[in-house]
Amino acid sequence: MIKSINKKAIVLISGGMDSALCAGIAKGEGFKLCALHISYGQRTSAREKKAFTDICNFYRIEKRLCADIKYLSDIGGSSLTDMPIKVSEVNLESHSIPSTYVPFRNGNILSIATSWAEVIGAGHIFIGAMEEDSSGYPDCREEFFKSFEQAVNSGTKPQTKIKIITPLIHLTKKEVVEKSLRLNVPLHLSWSCYQSEDKACGECDSCGLRLRGFEMAGERDPLEYKRNIN
Amino acid sequence: MIKSINKKAIVLISGGMDSALCAGIAKGEGFKLCALHISYGQRTSAREKKAFTDICNFYRIEKRLCADIKYLSDIGGSSLTDMPIKVSEVNLESHSIPSTYVPFRNGNILSIATSWAEVIGAGHIFIGAMEEDSSGYPDCREEFFKSFEQAVNSGTKPQTKIKIITPLIHLTKKEVVEKSLRLNVPLHLSWSCYQSEDKACGECDSCGLRLRGFEMAGERDPLEYKRNIN
Repeated sequence: MIKSINKKAIVLISGGMDSALCAGIAKGEGFKLCALHISYGQRTSAREKKAFTDICNFYRIEKRLCADIKYLSDIGGSSLTDMPIKVSEVNLESHSIPSTYVPFRNGNILSIATSWAEVIGAGHIFIGAMEEDSSGYPDCREEFFKSFEQAVNSGTKPQTKIKIITPLIHLTKKEVVEKSLRLNVPLHLSWSCYQSEDKACGECDSCGLRLRGFEMAGERDPLEYKRNIN
Repeated sequence: MIKSINKKAIVLISGGMDSALCAGIAKGEGFKLCALHISYGQRTSAREKKAFTDICNFYRIEKRLCADIKYLSDIGGSSLTDMPIKVSEVNLESHSIPSTYVPFRNGNILSIATSWAEVIGAGHIFIGAMEEDSSGYPDCREEFFKSFEQAVNSGTKPQTKIKIITPLIHLTKKEVVEKSLRLNVPLHLSWSCYQSEDKACGECDSCGLRLRGFEMAGERDPLEYKRNIN
């Protein structure tokens, strides 16, 4: 052995396409995965949980943790968790922060992952965030993850060393689709829609980004949609 | 008005002596307080919640939020939340991290405070953490709070500016007692014991630190203890 690194990793699996690819990449790099799913009172939480389970089964991930942070709905401020706020419809040209932004969601999620990582001795946290094509959420930017990694290492035991890995950070949705197909990532098991749980709505901004990714990659989304999207 | 600053602040109130003083200091500085209490499946959560309510009533804080992060008990790793691990007894000379350390607890707590601050437009988060006399938890050090503040501001909207204020960071428990008495902070309403909910045990490390603070300040703790502590 030339080098010995800690190959135990936590991977955040929301159930979306990005997190499925992220798990596939981490698996392909030989990490021993532990899967963390966060439920934060979002509209489609049951459907996302099913996608999480399906993806874990696909990758034979045994160690799983589902954490409920429904206080984010009590805090409100996002159309994802706050029922009276309308989910924003697709406006891919807009550069403003959409109503589906859940304030500092990734800070909350990474804090949970850090607590778990410190207890089980995982040295890596994989998160499938994307900066460029991510709807403009401030907590999806590479700068944030670097800054948070510093905070993590200054707030845990001296012997704890945790790296936050964002393999998708500079990918576009088009590249996510292409790379997922190349790596046989089970996109048919993933779920992206923010609005419905049976068939995807095809109208919310998450569906919009997903569909555009497939379209630009020249591929067909295996999911069913409520309206004809082709 | 020479300067106009955002005077809305979130104050973390666990119910302990330090958080009571922290609320008193923030109130004394003219901040408009919103109180955040975190329940993380600790043994004494009902008693701590009562202390939180009593302190909020004392300072006439109307806006209150209680967040349940019981996933920390699922994660385990601490005697505070993990019932099979024995709560460490007082060893004030030890420099190692005690069994009551909840991994990255302050990272989790500050993430919740940040989400709430961004939604309600609070520019300050007060937390009564103490570095020198704090049992040696890594997420109680000033370096951690500075680092976390940077992460907060890189992970929230551009117009959001949040300062993390730690007015007790360099105080000892002796000074907490002295300052609390000077500012008429209601220490009789606070609760520190990690182990029991009726009378304080006087044996866990939190009781130990509290009692030593009173002793060194030459004052008497108004709380009742199970064993004779004077």
